Amino acid sequence: MTTLTDCRALDARDVLRPLRDHFVLPDGVIYLDGNSLGVLPKSAVARVAEVITREWGQDLIRAWNSAGWFTLPQRLGDKIASLIGAGPGEVVATDSTSVNLYKVLSAALGMAAEDAPARKVIVSERSNFPTDLYIAEGLCRERGYRLQLVEPDDITAALTQDAAVLMLTHVNYRTGAMHDMAALTQAAHAAGVLVVWDLAHSAGAVPVDLQGANADFAVGCGYKYLNGGPGAPAFVWVHPRHADRFCQPLSGWWGHAAPFEFTPGYRPAPGITRYLCGTQPILSLAALECGLDVFGAADALGGMGALRAKSLALTDLFITLVEERCAGHGLGLATPREHAQRGSQVCLTRSQGPHAPPLRGSLPPEGAVTVLGRPGDSDSGAYAIVQALIARGVIGDFRAGSGDGRHPDILRFGFTPLYIGFEDVWHAVEHLKQLLETAEWQRPEFNQKHAVT
Amino acid sequence: MTTLTDCRALDARDVLRPLRDHFVLPDGVIYLDGNSLGVLPKSAVARVAEVITREWGQDLIRAWNSAGWFTLPQRLGDKIASLIGAGPGEVVATDSTSVNLYKVLSAALGMAAEDAPARKVIVSERSNFPTDLYIAEGLCRERGYRLQLVEPDDITAALTQDAAVLMLTHVNYRTGAMHDMAALTQAAHAAGVLVVWDLAHSAGAVPVDLQGANADFAVGCGYKYLNGGPGAPAFVWVHPRHADRFCQPLSGWWGHAAPFEFTPGYRPAPGITRYLCGTQPILSLAALECGLDVFGAADALGGMGALRAKSLALTDLFITLVEERCAGHGLGLATPREHAQRGSQVCLTRSQGPHAPPLRGSLPPEGAVTVLGRPGDSDSGAYAIVQALIARGVIGDFRAGSGDGRHPDILRFGFTPLYIGFEDVWHAVEHLKQLLETAEWQRPEFNQKHAVT
Repeated sequence: MTTLTDCRALDARDVLRPLRDHFVLPDGVIYLDGNSLGVLPKSAVARVAEVITREWGQDLIRAWNSAGWFTLPQRLGDKIASLIGAGPGEVVATDSTSVNLYKVLSAALGMAAEDAPARKVIVSERSNFPTDLYIAEGLCRERGYRLQLVEPDDITAALTQDAAVLMLTHVNYRTGAMHDMAALTQAAHAAGVLVVWDLAHSAGAVPVDLQGANADFAVGCGYKYLNGGPGAPAFVWVHPRHADRFCQPLSGWWGHAAPFEFTPGYRPAPGITRYLCGTQPILSLAALECGLDVFGAADALGGMGALRAKSLALTDLFITLVEERCAGHGLGLATPREHAQRGSQVCLTRSQGPHAPPLRGSLPPEGAVTVLGRPGDSDSGAYAIVQALIARGVIGDFRAGSGDGRHPDILRFGFTPLYIGFEDVWHAVEHLKQLLETAEWQRPEFNQKHAVT
Repeated sequence: MTTLTDCRALDARDVLRPLRDHFVLPDGVIYLDGNSLGVLPKSAVARVAEVITREWGQDLIRAWNSAGWFTLPQRLGDKIASLIGAGPGEVVATDSTSVNLYKVLSAALGMAAEDAPARKVIVSERSNFPTDLYIAEGLCRERGYRLQLVEPDDITAALTQDAAVLMLTHVNYRTGAMHDMAALTQAAHAAGVLVVWDLAHSAGAVPVDLQGANADFAVGCGYKYLNGGPGAPAFVWVHPRHADRFCQPLSGWWGHAAPFEFTPGYRPAPGITRYLCGTQPILSLAALECGLDVFGAADALGGMGALRAKSLALTDLFITLVEERCAGHGLGLATPREHAQRGSQVCLTRSQGPHAPPLRGSLPPEGAVTVLGRPGDSDSGAYAIVQALIARGVIGDFRAGSGDGRHPDILRFGFTPLYIGFEDVWHAVEHLKQLLETAEWQRPEFNQKHAVT
């Protein structure tokens, strides 16, 4: 059996432990929700204050040049590029993930329309993050395409001669399951299909090699594992072989070749800069840069390779401790055990009753678990358990199931290797064990639904 | 002749003078560029620090509910609504002006395609802010429309049976000329044309009555007269009669009727909320709210009516002082003298030589002034004069001419009535007078071009 002493020993050996000091970690909180909103980098407090008081307050309009505001999307983009296997000048930090997805999906469809006009299908995963599906749905309606949603195992089979674009999220937001980016990209290209990757749950969490995988387009999120702050600008990458080819439809002045000539005709800037649109929120970009700069400090300690090793050790430990200490309470494992298929989170399911299935190695197949209730009710107890954990200071989150038995309710725990320690994992599981044993999660206050974050 | 004493007397009588104390105004600076980037509201320093340290740092993911982050776009939208003649629940603060324009122009084209499919033209003004034209250009290409650009006097003539949408900026960014929103909207509707208004240079600067004008769609900017900070989120308004009718194409999860059900199919939220797309930059929204709250304080002192009266008094004074004190230096007036046609800025032109035209009442007709140089050169001296003024602490800005004689180089001066005083105007003109008389603007350092903001 794993002990608290074992966990402390892992922390003592953790070469990345000094990175924790770069962040504000609230007292009494074990924060396992960095996959939803990353914690505050200490440097952001002073940096944003400087942007406000000196750059905005004193330099005013001159700060666009003197403080380098104009080139923040590119400067931050270069820092992100090094985390996702992209080159300098290939990424910009801008807009939201949804808006950026609209840009690249439009560009991909535009290319497909030229190169293979008979292909009229966008393929994606049924449990992809919904906003990705909504954006695809809108573009399909607008351009006469069809969105085909499949289960993970059926993706390659869906890459038929009708398929124009494969749009996937690298690490699934519900299950933490990670796709093989290189293999799927290769399969897609072999079938004549372009690939758009959403890196929302991978950038900064797992090694990503866009160039190595020969991907076409990617977008990602600034406020999860990059710790850029609430609603931080997102990012967009386009393979250099495509970047100059197509104009995305959000053709605003920041993507113009010469924005300050104020000429009436749009002339796209070369490369990724044409994926900018309007003026960007500088305060939020400044905070994002503080989050990115911690990865610079991480580089000296082994970079993404070391972060990945620690992430896997953290999630392995969490799975082991839940198995060892929380057996008999109906918990199941929705996240793959295989390292190559796991992101940086662990998702549990729960079924009622004494005959609950054991922890299992992958998303339970349809019908293998008790149907866990329609979204919005709490038959599974998952919602109330997450609420009770939060009341104890262990912050994870709840994701409602599909209500049709296909996707169960989820208890979701993210492990950001930059600041989560092994002892944190111990205490999180200890709290989970205690509240399952005492059934305190069944108290009415934890079962009252309100807006779920 | 107007004297400094007169100007001081105007400040002494200015009932809005206390509002100046809400802002940080750098020492030694007369800031006449609030139409490009508004100054810092004092409250923003502490407010953003609170959002960072307490809400993000301590409350983390819980702050989406506890700090009301989710409803910031609507809360700020309601505050903006009261400045532009819109009702509560009709405006959201979100994304950039360019992105919002894409949404409403898409919606307008979608409506036109249903109601009048033969109409295939978007009409706009040739000297509209370029990003508006770029966005329209992109949508035209995508949807098979044509963008017809006309001079201001030719707008109504362009509202033919081919016209689907009229897209105008209420106050011209170059000249400060203001359109008659009610009359043009009426003319457009009479011709079966929908109208999209860009309020970038009007919201917070001049009274706007979208409902009274019976407008269809509007967008505007958060970082100019609303003082929301660099790149602050923009806003979007849709008349309630249209808001539920059409889904804009940027159909992200924040515009979903139930975003946290995470269901795969897009179901737009009722009303303006469907014009949201992805997660918004909370730090930048928080700063914008501080800018908006000053208008709450202004309400007690007469609100937009009083602000408009002061704005006109400031721009009248500037024109008068330039005429009285800077004659013989080739300056011309590009901004209308008529109050009803003037925004909150004054734009000057300059021609070389002793036979310079006098100040005139409106944009000089083609050929009436010396051709003022291609964009990027400095034949007019306008660029160097602005640079020399900035060196003296008088911050206005330069906008290059069209190079074909149609639109001259512009020296642009914005007068934000919330914080600009009458004595400021005196000193600004005094600096202009001195540097014209000494010709110090001809020194090489002021003539070296670099990125112009």
